[in-house]
Amino acid sequence: MEKADVLVIGGTVVTMNRRFEIIADGGIAVRGENIVGVGTREEIVTRFEAAEVVDCSGQIILPGLVNAHTHVPMTLLRGLADDLRLDVWLLGYMMPTEREFVTPEFCRLGTSLACAEMIRGGVTAFADMYYFEADIAAATAEAGLRGVLGQTVMKYPAPDAPSYDDSLAYCRKFIEEWRGHPLITPAVAPHAPYSNTDETMRRCTELALEYDVPLLTHLAETKLEVDDSVNEFGMTVITRMDGLNLFDAKVLAAHCVHIDQNEMHILHDHNATVAHCPTSNLKLASGIAPITQMLKSDLTVGIGTDGTASNNDLDMFEEVRLAAILAKTDAGDPTALPAKQALLMATRQGAEALFLGDITGSIEVGKRADVITLDDRPLHNSPQFEHDPNALYSRIVYASKSTDVRHVWCNGRALMRDRQLLTIDEPAVLQAAGELARRIDHFLITREQDIVSKLLAIGGIRQAESFEVQVKAQLDDETVLERLLTHPDVEILKAIRYRQYDTYFLFDDPAKGRVRYREDDRIAEDGTVESVRSRLTFTTPVKEREFHSTILLSHSRFIADANQSLRFYREYFRPVSERELHKDRRRWHLLYQGVLFYVNVDRVLQPQLDGLFVEIKSRTWSKSDAENKADRIQTMLSILGLDQSDVVSSDYLEMHNVH
Amino acid sequence: MEKADVLVIGGTVVTMNRRFEIIADGGIAVRGENIVGVGTREEIVTRFEAAEVVDCSGQIILPGLVNAHTHVPMTLLRGLADDLRLDVWLLGYMMPTEREFVTPEFCRLGTSLACAEMIRGGVTAFADMYYFEADIAAATAEAGLRGVLGQTVMKYPAPDAPSYDDSLAYCRKFIEEWRGHPLITPAVAPHAPYSNTDETMRRCTELALEYDVPLLTHLAETKLEVDDSVNEFGMTVITRMDGLNLFDAKVLAAHCVHIDQNEMHILHDHNATVAHCPTSNLKLASGIAPITQMLKSDLTVGIGTDGTASNNDLDMFEEVRLAAILAKTDAGDPTALPAKQALLMATRQGAEALFLGDITGSIEVGKRADVITLDDRPLHNSPQFEHDPNALYSRIVYASKSTDVRHVWCNGRALMRDRQLLTIDEPAVLQAAGELARRIDHFLITREQDIVSKLLAIGGIRQAESFEVQVKAQLDDETVLERLLTHPDVEILKAIRYRQYDTYFLFDDPAKGRVRYREDDRIAEDGTVESVRSRLTFTTPVKEREFHSTILLSHSRFIADANQSLRFYREYFRPVSERELHKDRRRWHLLYQGVLFYVNVDRVLQPQLDGLFVEIKSRTWSKSDAENKADRIQTMLSILGLDQSDVVSSDYLEMHNVH
Repeated sequence: MEKADVLVIGGTVVTMNRRFEIIADGGIAVRGENIVGVGTREEIVTRFEAAEVVDCSGQIILPGLVNAHTHVPMTLLRGLADDLRLDVWLLGYMMPTEREFVTPEFCRLGTSLACAEMIRGGVTAFADMYYFEADIAAATAEAGLRGVLGQTVMKYPAPDAPSYDDSLAYCRKFIEEWRGHPLITPAVAPHAPYSNTDETMRRCTELALEYDVPLLTHLAETKLEVDDSVNEFGMTVITRMDGLNLFDAKVLAAHCVHIDQNEMHILHDHNATVAHCPTSNLKLASGIAPITQMLKSDLTVGIGTDGTASNNDLDMFEEVRLAAILAKTDAGDPTALPAKQALLMATRQGAEALFLGDITGSIEVGKRADVITLDDRPLHNSPQFEHDPNALYSRIVYASKSTDVRHVWCNGRALMRDRQLLTIDEPAVLQAAGELARRIDHFLITREQDIVSKLLAIGGIRQAESFEVQVKAQLDDETVLERLLTHPDVEILKAIRYRQYDTYFLFDDPAKGRVRYREDDRIAEDGTVESVRSRLTFTTPVKEREFHSTILLSHSRFIADANQSLRFYREYFRPVSERELHKDRRRWHLLYQGVLFYVNVDRVLQPQLDGLFVEIKSRTWSKSDAENKADRIQTMLSILGLDQSDVVSSDYLEMHNVH
Repeated sequence: MEKADVLVIGGTVVTMNRRFEIIADGGIAVRGENIVGVGTREEIVTRFEAAEVVDCSGQIILPGLVNAHTHVPMTLLRGLADDLRLDVWLLGYMMPTEREFVTPEFCRLGTSLACAEMIRGGVTAFADMYYFEADIAAATAEAGLRGVLGQTVMKYPAPDAPSYDDSLAYCRKFIEEWRGHPLITPAVAPHAPYSNTDETMRRCTELALEYDVPLLTHLAETKLEVDDSVNEFGMTVITRMDGLNLFDAKVLAAHCVHIDQNEMHILHDHNATVAHCPTSNLKLASGIAPITQMLKSDLTVGIGTDGTASNNDLDMFEEVRLAAILAKTDAGDPTALPAKQALLMATRQGAEALFLGDITGSIEVGKRADVITLDDRPLHNSPQFEHDPNALYSRIVYASKSTDVRHVWCNGRALMRDRQLLTIDEPAVLQAAGELARRIDHFLITREQDIVSKLLAIGGIRQAESFEVQVKAQLDDETVLERLLTHPDVEILKAIRYRQYDTYFLFDDPAKGRVRYREDDRIAEDGTVESVRSRLTFTTPVKEREFHSTILLSHSRFIADANQSLRFYREYFRPVSERELHKDRRRWHLLYQGVLFYVNVDRVLQPQLDGLFVEIKSRTWSKSDAENKADRIQTMLSILGLDQSDVVSSDYLEMHNVH
């Protein structure tokens, strides 16, 4: 008798090997990390003796599932923000929360939580992309799962690295530390082409080649990404990456929703693989990846859940089912992606997508013992038919649930027996996750209540405190303007003309302020638009002080370049109402008695207001300076022939209200 | 204190009422069939006393889900045949199996099985369309679920009715028997416009109006259905049905995948409702229903699983999730169909779709106590965030599983407590279903092994046994033909010319015969195609006897009109290989010495064979008749100047093999 450690016997062994062998009343012998025997129950018990024999009658014995794309620590952010556009979700919620909370401890905890869910759902190997990947590796190894773990590199500062140089250095150290581990394959993960530069993509490729580790990245997830690439570089995403020799590395590309036949050839010629994430792609409205065409092009395609923040779980049974049925409608052919092929993508082909095809993904002698069992005949999978040999695959794909998983082994080690986790303290993980969620809730609730915090959360804001003195007056006679501009005490520094389009976001409590989104179109002398910039400004209604009962001292605003669209800010700030203000503005930077002032002459186009308005303002930094400038503004009003009665104290928006 | 029967307290009550109230630490009081109190736990226990108090702390208390479209007895056919085209699936597998097995007992058993699965998955009301609907009603009432049960009417014979007159009579009796039942709403269910006639659709409408019961039907499920309708009637499906006044009845239309804005207006104006079945539509490659547009058009849309034979389960949690995420990609907008709205479609709006909005679909005083509870915080739904009030809906829709359902009440009666079914003997149902599945397997396995059975199963075959005597010879000189045709013993009855396109399906064991699909293009004198017909023929290689060592007696073939496409038969018969044979055939029906013969003169175009061939054949029915006719054939060969050496004994296909 040959020695083994465990015999798993009595169930239907679905090997997923190249001949797709199915062994009724079958068995597996496991010794150390490896499968050493596969056959009928009779063959296995006759040939092997083992300390432990697990009777799996009434179960299906299957290779562990492979989750080809996820972000395990984000499991801690499950359901944080849903039903939002990608940019609002990512820039408005995920990134601010990550900036605030993602630490090595966060990553360890999130990994443990995700591993618990994946083990329960029959996953034994996964590909990850996140920060602090060394901590993810530690928690994954502790849970006993197999991981291809990609350390993120981006051109932006990240929670684990102030610059991409630091990310690359971290990544090198991470690879050095973890390569050769029986469960962990360290990898380089440039987040995506749009969040990297040519240089960072190249350096990631070089690093992957130097250590012969996989390179994980997001490619062609949205149509916008591809359109942007074509506009900026004259090439689609994958063509451009090919030009940078990215595919010299062993590339696992997530999503690939918007790629064409030529790009499939590029991927195929370089042995690059694809992670298909149907739930995430549907939920974020990214589209439907052309899986049938990819498979026809002989590409190696795995299936991934993506992170729970866009799924919202790590259930590979749901994912495989969705992949199978979605491909049919996408191809207009109900025979497309049959159950057997879909399951293959989640097992052997999934392992190949992770460049682990030699050690996992099927039940074969010599491969690692990554094995799960499912209850074969639950109510929701009854009755069963035998006349078609493919019916077994169909049952697994179309009706099995992750909750049917009973036992899980990975690398020969039992991770779950009779639905009891053996390597993770589930209650402790759940409790710690709950406590963290309370803190994140507090952060977000506080932020939602405070518009300034919400502005700060999306970054780029200039917080510099400053004050302005200013006056605004009705200007009935435009010609008086010349009196000021040609006055001997005045020196003109600059004259500009703008068309300004303002959108005000108003909130329930006006005292909390409002947000203005302004598009400044700078108008050239010939009337054409010279340049456009957008800015976001936060204002509160509070006036600090008055001088001469008309000249106001106001608290300066928080200002940020508005890099996102008006639509983004609308969905992010969720104002209760909006107001539009368009105006034609002439603006002068001038010195009056050697002091810098800004003079604006506005014609308000929408809401349409009669006549012109003049605004005179200057920055100030002390009470005496403010008084001094208020006096000068008073004199300038006199030069314009304006007095108290011409002064307007209300906003343009309010003036419209009065009319 | 007010009396109640049961208090369900302590969980988070998600009412799904018009104000979408959510009550933390809430409670419900149930008296008889009805909800008599909804409030905080404190309010409920202060106001009501009841014999039974169920503490649901840590659970979500939700209205029971509404499955807006299914075929419950078909649960017995779950996974019978997958990954097939609709016609192969329906005509090749479902209908033959149904013809053979669907009885009142089948329907009762299938209903019990389906109800068990639906109760486990939190469904308390469903809309059904099938046969023997009175038996479905009996089993549904016994299980304690609420059903809108539509008796099928079709123009074809059905398992429960040899004609549509019988179906309509059955339906009337069914309505008479069951109307007014607290759980059962009987309904009329014309299967679909394409499987009915104008007359049957009209009579169904009249019946529905006469009794004021709903009318259930399938509308615009596939693009083909709409295209066919436009081609045949010059109208889309719904426009055509509007012309027949179908929507005078309370119509619940399943699928509506291919409808336009105008059709949505028609449905809306008539208060017709829609059952959206995303899994079924994806799996059968029917397409994606324009749900976002329907909801914008203010249509009442529920969500249905369809039958398990096209799903393959009755899991409404999966269905709601898919509806939500699919709508986003279909609309190109991730904010489309948010979780709250998707859940609404599976609860209150689903009830409205079933015309049961006044009694179920939300937790409100006065409605029936159709209530379920879910575990609030399983691993796959942890952690949880509270900062967004919609996060609760998001958790239910995007991450809850049907296996999270713990308790179920319907109409005030407990159907499941702590995951134990109370009204259905689950092991007995599973065993009976398993036994039936064995019989169906046997039927299908036998059929697969026997091509004739498979032919018979799809119907229309002519089984008449008959025999032919025949000879085939090479005809080098075409002019000799005139000798026969002008011979004094010959009277020509008919002369025809065909272009024949044959496709032979070949199987593993040639002795089991082969199937020929023939398209006969009849060619007019001017060379145009006059008419086309397609026929299916089954032949075995066995020759019964030989006469004069060349004239064969062969067993006549099974012949059927080929109503389906070549592609259908290919996928249905799954031949191991195929052969093509095209020929130009002139054919004469003639009397030779007063006896009827057929003479064919063939030019074989593909595979291209040199020269012409003449075939002479006649039907026969006895040994002496066969001998007699063989003698005459022998004489005719002589008239043509042909002898033994010109005779060809092999098939055209085999001749090609020899060349």
